[in-house]
Amino acid sequence: MNWLFSPIPAPSPFFFKKAREQQDLLTKPPGSLGVLEQIAIRMSSLQGTENPAIEKIWVSIFAADHGVAEESVSAFPQEVTVEMVKNFVQGGAAVNVLSRFLETDFEVIDVGLAQNPCSPAIISDRAGTATANFCHHPAMTEQQLSVALNAGRSAVDRALSRQAELFIGGEMGIANSTSASAVACALLNTSAEELAGAGTGLNVEQIRHKSSVIETALNNHKTFLDSPLHIMQYLGGFEIAALTGAYLYAAQCQLPVLVDGFITTVAALCACKINPSLQEWLFFGHCSSEKGHRKILQVLEAEPILDLNMCLGEASGALAAAPLLQMACRLHNEMATFTQAKISTQEING
Amino acid sequence: MNWLFSPIPAPSPFFFKKAREQQDLLTKPPGSLGVLEQIAIRMSSLQGTENPAIEKIWVSIFAADHGVAEESVSAFPQEVTVEMVKNFVQGGAAVNVLSRFLETDFEVIDVGLAQNPCSPAIISDRAGTATANFCHHPAMTEQQLSVALNAGRSAVDRALSRQAELFIGGEMGIANSTSASAVACALLNTSAEELAGAGTGLNVEQIRHKSSVIETALNNHKTFLDSPLHIMQYLGGFEIAALTGAYLYAAQCQLPVLVDGFITTVAALCACKINPSLQEWLFFGHCSSEKGHRKILQVLEAEPILDLNMCLGEASGALAAAPLLQMACRLHNEMATFTQAKISTQEING
Repeated sequence: MNWLFSPIPAPSPFFFKKAREQQDLLTKPPGSLGVLEQIAIRMSSLQGTENPAIEKIWVSIFAADHGVAEESVSAFPQEVTVEMVKNFVQGGAAVNVLSRFLETDFEVIDVGLAQNPCSPAIISDRAGTATANFCHHPAMTEQQLSVALNAGRSAVDRALSRQAELFIGGEMGIANSTSASAVACALLNTSAEELAGAGTGLNVEQIRHKSSVIETALNNHKTFLDSPLHIMQYLGGFEIAALTGAYLYAAQCQLPVLVDGFITTVAALCACKINPSLQEWLFFGHCSSEKGHRKILQVLEAEPILDLNMCLGEASGALAAAPLLQMACRLHNEMATFTQAKISTQEING
Repeated sequence: MNWLFSPIPAPSPFFFKKAREQQDLLTKPPGSLGVLEQIAIRMSSLQGTENPAIEKIWVSIFAADHGVAEESVSAFPQEVTVEMVKNFVQGGAAVNVLSRFLETDFEVIDVGLAQNPCSPAIISDRAGTATANFCHHPAMTEQQLSVALNAGRSAVDRALSRQAELFIGGEMGIANSTSASAVACALLNTSAEELAGAGTGLNVEQIRHKSSVIETALNNHKTFLDSPLHIMQYLGGFEIAALTGAYLYAAQCQLPVLVDGFITTVAALCACKINPSLQEWLFFGHCSSEKGHRKILQVLEAEPILDLNMCLGEASGALAAAPLLQMACRLHNEMATFTQAKISTQEING
C-alpha cells in the first residue's frame, strides 16, 4: 500500500494567477459569476492550462456488501445491493439517467458483493464476499483493505486511459452509511449520535439503534483505531476503501475529482487524513440531507456546489453538479474580453 | 392592456398526484432526489403530462436604457448597454456561452436602447429611446408601458411558435438595478436602504447615493404609486415591464418560466401582484448576491435552486440552473420502478 503515500502534485500557481486575471478581463462585472469563476480558476490551475475543460467525465460506481447489515441498520434488505447493481447494468438507476444525459463514461465495479451479480458488464475487483460485521470483528483484513484500495486505483487508471478530465466516484452498498458514519466518528473523534443519520429512511428510534451499533464497534475496536488505514480496516467497507484509494491516486495523477455525498465524503476525509494535499484536487458536488454530511464538509472546509436535499448516493449529487463545472469552464474559455468586444469599462471607482 | 388580466390556468392536480405517486415507485429511497423530485412533480402538473420534458428552452434577452443612469447610480456608463447588446449578437457574453452549451433558442430584443445597435440580428420592439429619469419624471407614459408589456408578450408568442417547453427571460440595461429596487420598494412598501445593493459593483458610499436617489423618486411620485402598473410606469424600465408581460402571458399560455436574478425577480413580483396565480408557473434559478434578492424571494415564497453568489443578470443564473430542471425530468421519465427492476422494497418500517 506504499503507493497511497506517493506525493500529490500542487496545482499550478502560474495558471491560477493567469486564470484569475483572465476572469477580470471578461465582459461582466468583476466577480459576478461567483462560484463559477472560482471553479474555472481552480480547474485551470489543476489542469495546468489556460483553457480548462471538462468534456470527458468518468464515473466509477463501487459496490460491496456489509456484514453490519445483519444488525438491522438499514431500511432495505441486503439483497438490494446486488439488485441495484443489476439495475445499473440495465440502465434504470438514477446514475444511469444522469450519465446518459451528461454523456459520461460509466462503469460498475464489484468490490465485494455478497451475491454474484452474474453479469459480464460488471468489473470484478473483489476484496471479499461482503465485509465482516464490524460490531464484533474487524470489517476486513489488511490484505482485503489493500485489494479494495487498489480497486480504486485501477478505476482511475481506466479513466486516465480514456483521457478523462474529471473523476466521479459513486457507491452502492446496503448499510454503508453505518460504516461511513463509524469511520467518520473514529477519524474525527466524534460521537455516533452526532453523525449517524437516516440513511435510506430510518426513523428516530432506528437511528438511535444505528448509533448504538456504531458506539459498540468504536468501543470494541478502540485500541486499534490509531490511523486512517486502521480505521478503514476495522470499520470501513470495500467500496469506501476503493473510493479512498481512487481519490488519492487521481490526485497523484493530477486528475481532478468531484465528490458526491455522505459516503464518498467520508472516503475523501479518510484520504485527506492520509495526505492533506489531496484537498486541493477535490470539488464537492452537494451537501446531502444525510445528517453528518454538513459537519464533515465543514471539517474539510469544503464548499459544496448544490444544496438540494438529495441523499441517494450512487454519484447522483456529483452528476447533478457536473454541468456547473462544465459551464464554468466554457464561460472562462469562450466569453469575450472587454477589449475584444469593445466595451467601456467601469467609470465610477469610489 | 386588458390581456394582462386574463386568467392563468391552474396546474393539473391529476398529473401532480400521478407524478408524486410515480416518484415513490422509482428505484431510490423515497424523497432521496430531494428538490429534483419536486421539480419533476411540478413540471408534470404544469405541462399536464406523465412525461415532463424540457428539451426546448427559449431565452429572450430584453435590453433598454434608463434615464436614471444620469444620477450616477451604476459602476458602468450608459454606452455599455448597447455595447453589451452587440456582444450578445457576436456571441461573446455569458448568456451566449451558456445558451450554446444548453442548445437553447436565443434572441435579443431592443425594448428601448438609447443608441441604435444597428444590427438586423436584434429584434426591435421599442417603447421609446430610454426611459425618463424617474427621479424627476414618470419613467414612461402609459402608452410606452403598454408597448413594453406587449414586447414581452410577443417574445412568448415566438417561443410558443417554436414549441418551447421552458421560457427564460433575461435583461440588460445600465442602471436597471436602481429601477428594479425602486419598483420593489414601492410594491413591498419597503425602504430603499433595505433593498438597494451593489449592482454591477458600487461601494458602500455609492450604494447610499443610489438609495437616496430611490427615496427621492418614491417621495416625488408617492401619490401615483397605487397599483403594480402605476409603479412600473413611474419607476420601472422597458425591459422590466417586458419581463412582467412575458411572465404573465407565458403562464396564461401554460408555458413554465424559469426566473433569473434580482431584476427579473422584481418583474415577477410585479406580475404576481397583478395576478397571484402566476406564482405556480415560476421556477427560480438562483439566489443572487444582489442585496435585495433574498428578501424578495422570501416574499414570493420562492425556493431558488442555486445559491452561487452570482449577480450578472442576462439570464445567466437561470441558465446555470436549467440543466437541473432537465435532469429532474429525465430522472422522472427514465428511471426504472422497483417492480420493473425486480428490487426488494423496504423491510424495516418502524
